[in-house]
Amino acid sequence: MRVVVVGATGTIGSQVAQLLSRNHEVVSVGHARGDLQVDIGSKDAIQHLFEVVGSFDALVSAAGEARFGSLGELSDEDFMLGLRHKLMGQVNLVRIGRNHVKGRGSFTLTSGILSRQPMPGSASISMVNAAVEGFVRAAALELGPDVRVNAVSPVWVSETLEALGMDSSQGMPASAVAYAYRESVEGSRSGEVLDVRDFAS
Amino acid sequence: MRVVVVGATGTIGSQVAQLLSRNHEVVSVGHARGDLQVDIGSKDAIQHLFEVVGSFDALVSAAGEARFGSLGELSDEDFMLGLRHKLMGQVNLVRIGRNHVKGRGSFTLTSGILSRQPMPGSASISMVNAAVEGFVRAAALELGPDVRVNAVSPVWVSETLEALGMDSSQGMPASAVAYAYRESVEGSRSGEVLDVRDFAS
Repeated sequence: MRVVVVGATGTIGSQVAQLLSRNHEVVSVGHARGDLQVDIGSKDAIQHLFEVVGSFDALVSAAGEARFGSLGELSDEDFMLGLRHKLMGQVNLVRIGRNHVKGRGSFTLTSGILSRQPMPGSASISMVNAAVEGFVRAAALELGPDVRVNAVSPVWVSETLEALGMDSSQGMPASAVAYAYRESVEGSRSGEVLDVRDFAS
Repeated sequence: MRVVVVGATGTIGSQVAQLLSRNHEVVSVGHARGDLQVDIGSKDAIQHLFEVVGSFDALVSAAGEARFGSLGELSDEDFMLGLRHKLMGQVNLVRIGRNHVKGRGSFTLTSGILSRQPMPGSASISMVNAAVEGFVRAAALELGPDVRVNAVSPVWVSETLEALGMDSSQGMPASAVAYAYRESVEGSRSGEVLDVRDFAS
């Protein structure tokens, strides 16, 4: 398969690209590096990306910014960043990409554990992650049965915890998180939210 | 209790206001009618509303616009309407209202069944409803234990189905939907999504 990985230079995306490249042709798309670049906050940039990419069998997005902070700290702009970037950025990958994906293709977006297991400071991210999940459940009804769409919900990744100076043993290595993305790409699920803990064998 | 009902002139909100007025002082806020008016799409209007209302014990929102339509039909503006109005409008009622709510107070927002039981054409609404639910789960951790926040998830309401020329017997009367809002206001739950079918006795 020809698989486009958006966010392929990130902590999770790079492991997804590596895992999928064993059996597929991977087009790595980063924000500033990778085979191609895109800022998913820009719909024009997404449109341009697909024109350059041409047709593909699967798209994986492990991209999207959203801001952590308490209700008192988060500004209007902080909330909008998550909505415009992690949410609508990924939604727009589907809205535009559906015109370029091949039959029996798929889209795999990224939400996150905070949608259902929030913590203080996660209001904006929890909201955005839940929205991504609501979107894929609904979009699957329109894209299917020919094209599938899922979200993968990662837990805290070891590498991220380590970068934050936290206990990395509480997280899952990004290489293990990648298996849920592979399941979404290679399996037959659609409209589902894949908990990475169910696929990290 | 002094309960502010935003959307009090709507199909569901009017029944909530009526039910709660049996035991509480209800301040009815509509879009164009009611004791007071607010367009929750405007943060300034929300700020002004709370300055006029003063302190209160509970706020119920049964307000917020979002657009139904297939992925091909929905424009960028359609998606943004739901995010700006039904989602951030309700989020802003909490963000600003928390400075005015009394201790042991509560916020009750409205999501909807399409967050978890989507249908073709519900991509934008499913996304927004799920986001409202993700928000209340997270916000409850920061507002609590003194202030509570929940979302009520209505099913299709008979009156709405009838207005759409559909079979109203497939829906639940708005007067029955109102009981879930009362449970959120008078009970002790927080961070929950109340399915109206569990409270319509």
